[in-house]
Amino acid sequence: MQELRDRIAREGRNLGRGILKVDSFINHQVDAHLMMSVGRDLARLFSNAHPTKVLTAEISGIAPALTTALALDVPVIYARKTRPVTMPDDAYRDEAPSHTKGGSVELLVSPEVLLPGDRVLIIDDFLASGRTIAALARLVGQSGATLVGIGTLIEKSFEGGRAFLASQYAVPIGSLVTITDMRDGQIVFGE
Amino acid sequence: MQELRDRIAREGRNLGRGILKVDSFINHQVDAHLMMSVGRDLARLFSNAHPTKVLTAEISGIAPALTTALALDVPVIYARKTRPVTMPDDAYRDEAPSHTKGGSVELLVSPEVLLPGDRVLIIDDFLASGRTIAALARLVGQSGATLVGIGTLIEKSFEGGRAFLASQYAVPIGSLVTITDMRDGQIVFGE
Repeated sequence: MQELRDRIAREGRNLGRGILKVDSFINHQVDAHLMMSVGRDLARLFSNAHPTKVLTAEISGIAPALTTALALDVPVIYARKTRPVTMPDDAYRDEAPSHTKGGSVELLVSPEVLLPGDRVLIIDDFLASGRTIAALARLVGQSGATLVGIGTLIEKSFEGGRAFLASQYAVPIGSLVTITDMRDGQIVFGE
Repeated sequence: MQELRDRIAREGRNLGRGILKVDSFINHQVDAHLMMSVGRDLARLFSNAHPTKVLTAEISGIAPALTTALALDVPVIYARKTRPVTMPDDAYRDEAPSHTKGGSVELLVSPEVLLPGDRVLIIDDFLASGRTIAALARLVGQSGATLVGIGTLIEKSFEGGRAFLASQYAVPIGSLVTITDMRDGQIVFGE
């Protein structure tokens, strides 16, 4: 997706250790129009899979997941990391490694919204190691719903997440922009 | 806003102690089309104030703030509750009481995105005590930007947040749906 790639080339910052700073347009300040374009493109990639729900993890997945859901005309669910008082005790739970705090973070989804008959498209901002997305996929499994695709805005292909997920889930995996290398302060885009 | 009010009447649950469960369409599962309508209505309420940024707090403010920003054709910023590694050390910080964990929660915004010349519209899902919104307003003050309005989806008027905010900030405060009473398991809507 040229629009997103151009924006990363212009505003993205390589902070080292594989950390890409995109908080002026994706995950702190959000360019609402860019998010709509991103959602339309992700929806187009996965419309053949006929998702009935989009699933993401709070926090930075919410914006692109919402716009993708809008374009697909389905609801979006964001897995919570802390159980709100409104969530039933029998929530589906799994764990993913935490990027910010070390250790692991819990992901919770209510059985009231993720149903056995659902066809679920997982959307997140980044595909890096794939561990958060794998946790979301296990929540889909717990619910009895069917995972039908995995889509992200930015794939850091050098972290191997695609291979990790593909080894476990036989579903289409798509990203709008691929970054192949971030060594030496560079941001190298894939084909 | 009739569409939102009807939805709350149909799917909202009064869990007692003033807790309104709306997690099937607002803050766990999100109805993307309803969020677009909500964003258009909030944008209409505040377009005369000419905001240049929408500001919200993660997590459940993100969806309505994004759609409001889209309708206003401006970016949206969500204040973070945990400092990401990409955020500079000199972030604006303030504190709000935590609903889920007790104690208080920190709210952080980067000076890179909230600028002294900005005209800021605060959007959140609920107006209850107004304490989280007040913390966002203080972040606006720290940055030197100008607060131009406060909008929410659902106001629980019996919690007094509007009076609390109005006593400190001379800006328009608007909500799409007002709930005046939640005693005895009821959900009583305002005019």
